[in-house]
Amino acid sequence: MNTQTTTKKLMQYLPGIVLLLMICMAIAPSLSFGQDSAGGATGTINDVAAATPGKPTLEEIGATAGHNKISINMTWTLICGFLVMFMQAGFAMVETGFTQKKNVAHTMGMNFLVYALGMFGFWVCGFAIMFGGGLNVAALGGAAGVESHEYVISLFGHDFGIAGTVGFFLNSKVYDVTVFSLFLFQMVFMDTTATIPTGSMAERWSMKSFILFALFISMFVYPLYGNWVWGGGWLAMLGGNFGLGHGMVDFAGSSVVHLVGGVAALAGAIVIGPRIGKYNADGTVNTIPGHNIPMAIVGTFILAFGWFGFNAGSTLAGTDLHISVIAVNTMMAGTAGCLSALLYMMVRGEKPDPGMLANGLLAGLVAITAPCAFVNSISSVIIGGIAGLLVIVVYNFLDRKLKIDDPVGAFAVHGANGAWGCIALGLFADGTYGDGWNGVKGNVTGLFYGDASQLYAQLIGVAVCFIFVFIVMYTFFKISNKITPIRVPAADEIAGLDIPEMGVKGYLD
Amino acid sequence: MNTQTTTKKLMQYLPGIVLLLMICMAIAPSLSFGQDSAGGATGTINDVAAATPGKPTLEEIGATAGHNKISINMTWTLICGFLVMFMQAGFAMVETGFTQKKNVAHTMGMNFLVYALGMFGFWVCGFAIMFGGGLNVAALGGAAGVESHEYVISLFGHDFGIAGTVGFFLNSKVYDVTVFSLFLFQMVFMDTTATIPTGSMAERWSMKSFILFALFISMFVYPLYGNWVWGGGWLAMLGGNFGLGHGMVDFAGSSVVHLVGGVAALAGAIVIGPRIGKYNADGTVNTIPGHNIPMAIVGTFILAFGWFGFNAGSTLAGTDLHISVIAVNTMMAGTAGCLSALLYMMVRGEKPDPGMLANGLLAGLVAITAPCAFVNSISSVIIGGIAGLLVIVVYNFLDRKLKIDDPVGAFAVHGANGAWGCIALGLFADGTYGDGWNGVKGNVTGLFYGDASQLYAQLIGVAVCFIFVFIVMYTFFKISNKITPIRVPAADEIAGLDIPEMGVKGYLD
Amino acid sequence: MNTQTTTKKLMQYLPGIVLLLMICMAIAPSLSFGQDSAGGATGTINDVAAATPGKPTLEEIGATAGHNKISINMTWTLICGFLVMFMQAGFAMVETGFTQKKNVAHTMGMNFLVYALGMFGFWVCGFAIMFGGGLNVAALGGAAGVESHEYVISLFGHDFGIAGTVGFFLNSKVYDVTVFSLFLFQMVFMDTTATIPTGSMAERWSMKSFILFALFISMFVYPLYGNWVWGGGWLAMLGGNFGLGHGMVDFAGSSVVHLVGGVAALAGAIVIGPRIGKYNADGTVNTIPGHNIPMAIVGTFILAFGWFGFNAGSTLAGTDLHISVIAVNTMMAGTAGCLSALLYMMVRGEKPDPGMLANGLLAGLVAITAPCAFVNSISSVIIGGIAGLLVIVVYNFLDRKLKIDDPVGAFAVHGANGAWGCIALGLFADGTYGDGWNGVKGNVTGLFYGDASQLYAQLIGVAVCFIFVFIVMYTFFKISNKITPIRVPAADEIAGLDIPEMGVKGYLD
Repeated sequence: MNTQTTTKKLMQYLPGIVLLLMICMAIAPSLSFGQDSAGGATGTINDVAAATPGKPTLEEIGATAGHNKISINMTWTLICGFLVMFMQAGFAMVETGFTQKKNVAHTMGMNFLVYALGMFGFWVCGFAIMFGGGLNVAALGGAAGVESHEYVISLFGHDFGIAGTVGFFLNSKVYDVTVFSLFLFQMVFMDTTATIPTGSMAERWSMKSFILFALFISMFVYPLYGNWVWGGGWLAMLGGNFGLGHGMVDFAGSSVVHLVGGVAALAGAIVIGPRIGKYNADGTVNTIPGHNIPMAIVGTFILAFGWFGFNAGSTLAGTDLHISVIAVNTMMAGTAGCLSALLYMMVRGEKPDPGMLANGLLAGLVAITAPCAFVNSISSVIIGGIAGLLVIVVYNFLDRKLKIDDPVGAFAVHGANGAWGCIALGLFADGTYGDGWNGVKGNVTGLFYGDASQLYAQLIGVAVCFIFVFIVMYTFFKISNKITPIRVPAADEIAGLDIPEMGVKGYLD
Repeated sequence: MNTQTTTKKLMQYLPGIVLLLMICMAIAPSLSFGQDSAGGATGTINDVAAATPGKPTLEEIGATAGHNKISINMTWTLICGFLVMFMQAGFAMVETGFTQKKNVAHTMGMNFLVYALGMFGFWVCGFAIMFGGGLNVAALGGAAGVESHEYVISLFGHDFGIAGTVGFFLNSKVYDVTVFSLFLFQMVFMDTTATIPTGSMAERWSMKSFILFALFISMFVYPLYGNWVWGGGWLAMLGGNFGLGHGMVDFAGSSVVHLVGGVAALAGAIVIGPRIGKYNADGTVNTIPGHNIPMAIVGTFILAFGWFGFNAGSTLAGTDLHISVIAVNTMMAGTAGCLSALLYMMVRGEKPDPGMLANGLLAGLVAITAPCAFVNSISSVIIGGIAGLLVIVVYNFLDRKLKIDDPVGAFAVHGANGAWGCIALGLFADGTYGDGWNGVKGNVTGLFYGDASQLYAQLIGVAVCFIFVFIVMYTFFKISNKITPIRVPAADEIAGLDIPEMGVKGYLD
Repeated sequence: MNTQTTTKKLMQYLPGIVLLLMICMAIAPSLSFGQDSAGGATGTINDVAAATPGKPTLEEIGATAGHNKISINMTWTLICGFLVMFMQAGFAMVETGFTQKKNVAHTMGMNFLVYALGMFGFWVCGFAIMFGGGLNVAALGGAAGVESHEYVISLFGHDFGIAGTVGFFLNSKVYDVTVFSLFLFQMVFMDTTATIPTGSMAERWSMKSFILFALFISMFVYPLYGNWVWGGGWLAMLGGNFGLGHGMVDFAGSSVVHLVGGVAALAGAIVIGPRIGKYNADGTVNTIPGHNIPMAIVGTFILAFGWFGFNAGSTLAGTDLHISVIAVNTMMAGTAGCLSALLYMMVRGEKPDPGMLANGLLAGLVAITAPCAFVNSISSVIIGGIAGLLVIVVYNFLDRKLKIDDPVGAFAVHGANGAWGCIALGLFADGTYGDGWNGVKGNVTGLFYGDASQLYAQLIGVAVCFIFVFIVMYTFFKISNKITPIRVPAADEIAGLDIPEMGVKGYLD
């Protein structure tokens, strides 16, 4: 189009715009909506439900204030839980973006199904096993009528909580608004764990085997370890039983969520073996690049977005004002991870690979997940910065030395840094937080601030997680392989899994 | 890169890392930020605005507690409304992903424009028609100064509310913070309805015809039916007038939002006719697969994410602690829908088509939308499970038997399951909730818990919705076709609508 | 598959479904979960922490009510901040979608890195410079123990605040939960500014030069102007010092965020020069269309979603019930911008280009950002409607007349409409809001409602922003070009920046 003509045409609009402005000037005052005049809208005393309207008693006001407190805690917990649920989309995009075009429907399909399968398994028995021994819903208003019962083993004169036994199918014994809040928040955490191995085993895992896995981990493996740390089980008891700090402490799941998922991913990657074409006969390694960087980067942003809910929501209380410190630490550690990965690559004269930048950010987020509430902002930068290096080192070690093919670096991100996060808590916890959170008595203090015993508890917790999950999941993958083959036929793998496994192609022209 | 060289290089970093750790150990304690010491930060009594600072009276504390309650309700309603708005992105992605590559700019464009057009129409008159007869903003703090007036017909000795008449252009008569909250929350619901037919009529609808539609449904059709159920109109009055339960009850819009949208989608698909190439002369049916599964799956996740706001936000109150039950029921029904669709396909020996899994999940979400607050978690699994089968059966029936071409299954998802959700409420409502919500008196009870009359009210509501919306929209599409052709030229349809309708291609190499 | 066979097969399920329904009818009542019976769950007086359980004193109830108020404000501020952070994904998608396929890894990479780099720079010194002179955390509960100190110049008998000097590295002097909330919320705003120039300079900017830019703008440029308007600096003092309205007022950042970013984008686009192939030797202009409309449209939805947090969150208080008016004004202005752009194109007989529709919506959002809290809903439609025209006119003027190549229209959207938004505040502010917000005394009133002096303050603020940012950024880009070339080699630009700059291709087949 001719520029001059355009300008002329635009000039025709000018009188109209001037007229419009004049009209606005004329009518705008008469449209003045007045003040927010409605009495109720600004919250008068009448808003307190009172037996005698306008004359609330001390008891009535107290009841309203107490109910408000619970409401703040519950809305916070739920909204944070929604954000965590949205991370499923982030995981799906990161994993699909970083794998090959020929498998997109399959990788997406696994990430989609794991949400439903995991939720179902957790509803059937996972939640009951994990939390049915000590429903900690005090922040959400206590739950006077809710039973809880723990399966306990007594050894060496101590009790060791192993598993909860109340709440299967969210049945009538746990029908309580506070328990339902807890269920929602914990379910989405479990789904994060369950989706991690879909990355390490991508591009060769059969759907049927995957379905068995998703039910198994959500019903039994995640809930058991979760019970030991968060459900009042034996690792949480290390403090009381043996004087090791406050027992194993993990604020938002570096171990319970990420290390469990990462170790399961490692076991799976070992059992299923590397993708065809990944390793050459002469021992050299091929890089199989992802097919869609924008998808993976947007997925990473979604994960970083949801992680605010993941970590800050783990107070289960919006009235715990420490949430702001947690949220800031979370984003600073992610940033530090991303930047240390960038620095590492720049120092080595490499290009800033977006995949490594994304994994650096995610590594920082994983590492800060356990200590986020207990450390200051400078410590969180240090923790995240180390995570950003660790993820590259561990990924390269697995990929090149151990020849374990983990297409998206699931173990390096979630496993190695899950462990690092738990240990970092034992080092950097500064003794300013902890008292009252999830039944903890007294603030949590790490080695650098004077309590070495907390570090021991953390090391035990990490070791137990690694050993327990690896053995169970390795065995599970081996046995499930007898029921239905874990790996798709070689011809399908080469051609792409979309048609043979899902019946449709992921992309069509 | 050589592995050994890498390892060597990494070794060079080790001393640095050790040094860094030692420095951390040295400086970290001195960086100790102290306790959260600031008085204000932990919320002292001074935070209550008092005429005499530090000496608040009973009245002042009561006012603060009351204002807090309203604030909790408003922030909850707004945040949930934001989540529902985000569902527009989900719908856009699902519809575009499940249609053809040659029409992506057009399908995206419709989904984008419907947000703006619908909002504008709802602002002009939709909101006034729907809620101007009974602005129910009690949960948001009452609104003493807000007028409302309903157009009422008297028949058989009863009053029948038909339409509201206050609040056009959100003018000064409704200028109140509580009304604006309601407007935002309700506007995003309306936009969900308006976007549903863009799925059933995709790949052949002309933009001009679509623009007329978007204004028509947002200004008149949605608001009228919405008035009858949510605005205090005649369907809500079935209880008081005729003793049918609590009148037609629909917690979050299985009928008001989804059934209206689904029936409009059906009328549109019938009037516009099937896509070229969908049905062969010999009566056989061609499947026209979607072009981008990842886009559709991520869109489904976004919808499931936003649905938490859709359903739990419909309390309009964060202080209504039932929100946790609603949120859990919502996600369980979606999961059950997805898994029953999976089971259906596995039983039949089919591959787990991601499209059907996504539609199963969405069907479960649509079905639970009406009853989510009134049923227990096991009932929600049953309701969702049935929805997951229903969506497949209805889709196949329309597609293969009736030869109605609905590219994304909009009627099967939103129409059939919207109806099923309303009926399910009449069956499964367990009498634990309802009193006080949106003017309802007493808890809502369905057939299985003893109140058959509630089921009758639901059946009437569903039938009225189907008849009213179908007749009006069928007529509208027929008439609007005289004003501007509803369907693009065949040549454009075959070549793709992006250039002829939008002027740009959706994807460029 | 044969339709009849399908129908027959489906019939086999009917008895099962009927049976299932009968079972449900039988068992559902026995699954009745009872009422929400737990005492704590409904919030009794016991929820107020009282020295004597069950007998809270007036002081204890007051403390709970005060703490609740702060909690509501903090959770609101944090959640809104999370939404703003998510806008980074939106910007990344819009910019990548509207540019060319050969540069996707580079455009995505810049948008990803700017999040980390900007956050780091803001943490190091940006936050201290911007807010270290007047930490306004009253809404978040005051912060008795937090120091703040402003660098001030005295001229003409008045003090002019220039920069804050407290809070580098979020160190121990500002360790306070309220300050951390403010940091999070303000950091994500800064990142919006920093990401705007990645649009105007896309497809030719070298990564190294970009890294310098990201640190420079987040550490110095954004914080300085931000200090002057939001940190209690000299532009905010124009009211007290010279009687110009309430000084420069910008509710959520039309100037501080968008105009700063837009002017920086303009300076960058001028210095770096147009893309190869954009302008022909004969003065004619080539359009270089975006490669992925769905990505850009979904990104726009994400931005509109996050903008609710951007604007309504800028109260820093969920107990400020004006949030609903702000949120409604925000969405109405966006819609008006989109529709006026649509109307403009339809009047001219053009197709509804999705790029222009998206930019129209964004323009409306940018323009309403400053005045959103001070105007009524009809004014917001007028402001947004003008913005939707302005963005097209300015874009065409730059693109065709001035021959400045701004691939995504960053200046037209953020610069021109940022300025328009600040001016619109000076015209349409209706005197119903402002008192108490960010230290403002008395409500803000614009020209049409009687206070011309407010308009002068706005014009000064806009002019200062344009002059200060343009000179500083133009100089910066010129100087940084000596350190490392701002522009990639021509061969790389033609071939695409993904491999030479990022080391990987954005898309792989």
